[in-house]
Amino acid sequence: MTQKFQAQIYVTLRPSVLDPAGTAVQSGLAHMGYTNVEQIRIGKYVELSLTAESESAARSQLDTICDQLLANPVIENYRIELQALATV
Amino acid sequence: MTQKFQAQIYVTLRPSVLDPAGTAVQSGLAHMGYTNVEQIRIGKYVELSLTAESESAARSQLDTICDQLLANPVIENYRIELQALATV
Repeated sequence: MTQKFQAQIYVTLRPSVLDPAGTAVQSGLAHMGYTNVEQIRIGKYVELSLTAESESAARSQLDTICDQLLANPVIENYRIELQALATV
Repeated sequence: MTQKFQAQIYVTLRPSVLDPAGTAVQSGLAHMGYTNVEQIRIGKYVELSLTAESESAARSQLDTICDQLLANPVIENYRIELQALATV
Protein backbone atom coordinates (compact mmCIF):
# COMPACT_ATOMS: atom_id res chain seq x y z
CA MET A 1 0.00 0.00 0.00
CA THR A 2 1.55 3.25 -1.06
CA GLN A 3 0.57 6.73 -0.05
CA LYS A 4 0.81 10.00 -1.91
CA PHE A 5 2.57 12.90 -0.19
CA GLN A 6 2.94 16.58 -0.93
CA ALA A 7 6.23 18.08 0.23
CA GLN A 8 7.63 21.58 0.66
CA ILE A 9 11.39 21.91 0.93
CA TYR A 10 13.11 25.09 2.13
CA VAL A 11 16.80 25.38 1.32
CA THR A 12 18.59 28.20 3.10
CA LEU A 13 22.22 29.26 3.34
CA ARG A 14 23.83 28.46 6.67
CA PRO A 15 23.96 31.54 8.90
CA SER A 16 27.76 31.68 8.70
CA VAL A 17 27.74 31.84 4.88
CA LEU A 18 27.63 35.23 3.15
CA ASP A 19 24.56 35.82 0.97
CA PRO A 20 25.54 38.22 -1.84
CA ALA A 21 22.08 37.99 -3.45
CA GLY A 22 20.44 38.98 -0.18
CA THR A 23 22.86 41.88 0.22
CA ALA A 24 22.06 43.02 -3.34
CA VAL A 25 18.34 42.95 -2.62
CA GLN A 26 18.85 44.88 0.60
CA SER A 27 20.86 47.57 -1.16
CA GLY A 28 18.22 47.70 -3.94
CA LEU A 29 15.51 48.20 -1.33
CA ALA A 30 17.54 50.94 0.38
CA HIS A 31 17.82 52.74 -2.98
CA MET A 32 14.03 52.47 -3.32
CA GLY A 33 13.63 54.06 0.10
CA TYR A 34 12.92 50.95 2.16
CA THR A 35 15.60 51.42 4.77
CA ASN A 36 13.61 49.62 7.49
CA VAL A 37 14.18 46.17 5.96
CA GLU A 38 17.10 44.12 7.24
CA GLN A 39 18.71 40.69 7.37
CA ILE A 40 17.54 39.55 3.96
CA ARG A 41 18.49 35.95 3.16
CA ILE A 42 17.48 34.32 -0.11
CA GLY A 43 16.93 30.60 -0.39
CA LYS A 44 15.15 28.07 -2.55
CA TYR A 45 11.62 26.77 -2.15
CA VAL A 46 10.79 23.43 -3.78
CA GLU A 47 7.34 21.88 -4.03
CA LEU A 48 6.92 18.29 -5.14
CA SER A 49 4.70 15.26 -4.76
CA LEU A 50 5.85 11.70 -4.26
CA THR A 51 4.52 8.24 -3.47
CA ALA A 52 5.98 6.18 -0.64
CA GLU A 53 5.12 3.35 1.74
CA SER A 54 4.95 5.58 4.79
CA GLU A 55 5.63 9.09 5.99
CA SER A 56 8.99 8.05 7.45
CA ALA A 57 9.99 6.41 4.16
CA ALA A 58 9.02 9.57 2.27
CA ARG A 59 10.98 11.75 4.70
CA SER A 60 14.09 9.60 4.53
CA GLN A 61 13.96 9.60 0.72
CA LEU A 62 13.60 13.39 0.67
CA ASP A 63 16.57 13.70 3.06
CA THR A 64 18.69 11.75 0.57
CA ILE A 65 17.39 13.82 -2.37
CA CYS A 66 18.20 17.07 -0.56
CA ASP A 67 21.69 15.92 0.39
CA GLN A 68 22.48 14.64 -3.11
CA LEU A 69 20.74 17.11 -5.40
CA LEU A 70 18.69 19.97 -3.99
CA ALA A 71 21.01 21.37 -1.35
CA ASN A 72 24.75 21.70 -0.87
CA PRO A 73 25.16 20.41 2.71
CA VAL A 74 28.47 22.23 3.10
CA ILE A 75 26.87 25.67 2.86
CA GLU A 76 23.11 25.08 3.03
CA ASN A 77 20.51 23.83 5.48
CA TYR A 78 17.18 22.41 4.45
CA ARG A 79 13.82 21.84 6.11
CA ILE A 80 11.17 19.44 4.84
CA GLU A 81 7.41 19.69 5.40
CA LEU A 82 5.28 16.73 4.42
CA GLN A 83 1.52 16.21 4.11
CA ALA A 84 -0.11 12.86 3.41
CA LEU A 85 -2.65 13.21 0.61
CA ALA A 86 -4.38 9.96 -0.32
CA THR A 87 -3.77 6.25 -0.22
CA VAL A 88 -3.05 5.05 -3.78
CA MET B 1 5.74 53.10 18.45
CA THR B 2 7.27 50.75 15.94
CA GLN B 3 7.30 47.01 16.01
CA LYS B 4 9.81 44.54 14.68
CA PHE B 5 8.58 41.80 12.36
CA GLN B 6 10.11 38.67 10.92
CA ALA B 7 8.79 37.76 7.46
CA GLN B 8 8.98 34.73 5.19
CA ILE B 9 8.16 35.24 1.53
CA TYR B 10 7.51 32.38 -0.86
CA VAL B 11 7.73 33.24 -4.56
CA THR B 12 6.41 30.55 -6.90
CA LEU B 13 5.84 30.38 -10.63
CA ARG B 14 2.17 30.59 -11.63
CA PRO B 15 0.78 27.13 -12.38
CA SER B 16 0.34 27.97 -16.07
CA VAL B 17 4.03 28.89 -16.47
CA LEU B 18 6.52 26.19 -17.49
CA ASP B 19 9.28 25.50 -14.93
CA PRO B 20 12.38 24.30 -16.82
CA ALA B 21 14.47 24.12 -13.61
CA GLY B 22 11.84 21.88 -11.99
CA THR B 23 11.76 19.67 -15.08
CA ALA B 24 15.56 19.41 -15.00
CA VAL B 25 15.51 18.39 -11.33
CA GLN B 26 12.81 15.81 -12.03
CA SER B 27 14.80 14.27 -14.88
CA GLY B 28 17.92 14.29 -12.69
CA LEU B 29 16.03 12.45 -9.96
CA ALA B 30 14.70 9.93 -12.49
CA HIS B 31 18.31 9.24 -13.59
CA MET B 32 19.21 8.68 -9.93
CA GLY B 33 16.40 6.12 -9.64
CA TYR B 34 13.80 8.28 -7.90
CA THR B 35 10.94 7.76 -10.34
CA ASN B 36 8.26 8.20 -7.66
CA VAL B 37 8.79 11.97 -7.40
CA GLU B 38 6.59 14.23 -9.51
CA GLN B 39 5.36 17.76 -10.08
CA ILE B 40 8.52 19.52 -8.97
CA ARG B 41 8.26 23.31 -8.96
CA ILE B 42 11.15 25.49 -7.85
CA GLY B 43 10.63 28.89 -6.32
CA LYS B 44 12.35 31.41 -4.12
CA TYR B 45 12.27 31.66 -0.34
CA VAL B 46 13.15 35.00 1.22
CA GLU B 47 13.60 35.67 4.93
CA LEU B 48 13.85 39.22 6.22
CA SER B 49 13.14 41.40 9.21
CA LEU B 50 11.61 44.85 9.16
CA THR B 51 10.26 47.51 11.47
CA ALA B 52 6.80 48.99 10.93
CA GLU B 53 4.00 50.76 12.77
CA SER B 54 1.63 47.80 12.62
CA GLU B 55 1.22 44.35 11.11
CA SER B 56 -0.99 45.72 8.35
CA ALA B 57 1.58 48.42 7.51
CA ALA B 58 4.31 45.77 7.36
CA ARG B 59 2.19 43.55 5.14
CA SER B 60 1.30 46.34 2.74
CA GLN B 61 4.96 47.37 2.48
CA LEU B 62 6.00 43.78 1.77
CA ASP B 63 3.29 43.56 -0.91
CA THR B 64 4.82 46.57 -2.64
CA ILE B 65 8.34 45.15 -2.27
CA CYS B 66 7.27 41.82 -3.77
CA ASP B 67 5.49 43.47 -6.70
CA GLN B 68 8.38 45.81 -7.44
CA LEU B 69 11.48 43.75 -6.69
CA LEU B 70 11.18 40.21 -5.39
CA ALA B 71 8.59 38.71 -7.73
CA ASN B 72 7.57 39.19 -11.34
CA PRO B 73 3.78 39.48 -11.01
CA VAL B 74 3.29 38.49 -14.65
CA ILE B 75 4.61 34.97 -14.12
CA GLU B 76 4.96 34.55 -10.34
CA ASN B 77 2.75 34.41 -7.27
CA TYR B 78 3.95 35.20 -3.78
CA ARG B 79 2.81 34.45 -0.27
CA ILE B 80 3.88 36.40 2.83
CA GLU B 81 4.06 35.09 6.40
CA LEU B 82 4.64 37.61 9.15
CA GLN B 83 5.45 37.26 12.86
CA ALA B 84 5.58 40.16 15.28
CA LEU B 85 8.78 40.02 17.34
CA ALA B 86 9.16 42.86 19.82
CA THR B 87 8.07 46.43 20.29
CA VAL B 88 11.03 48.69 19.56
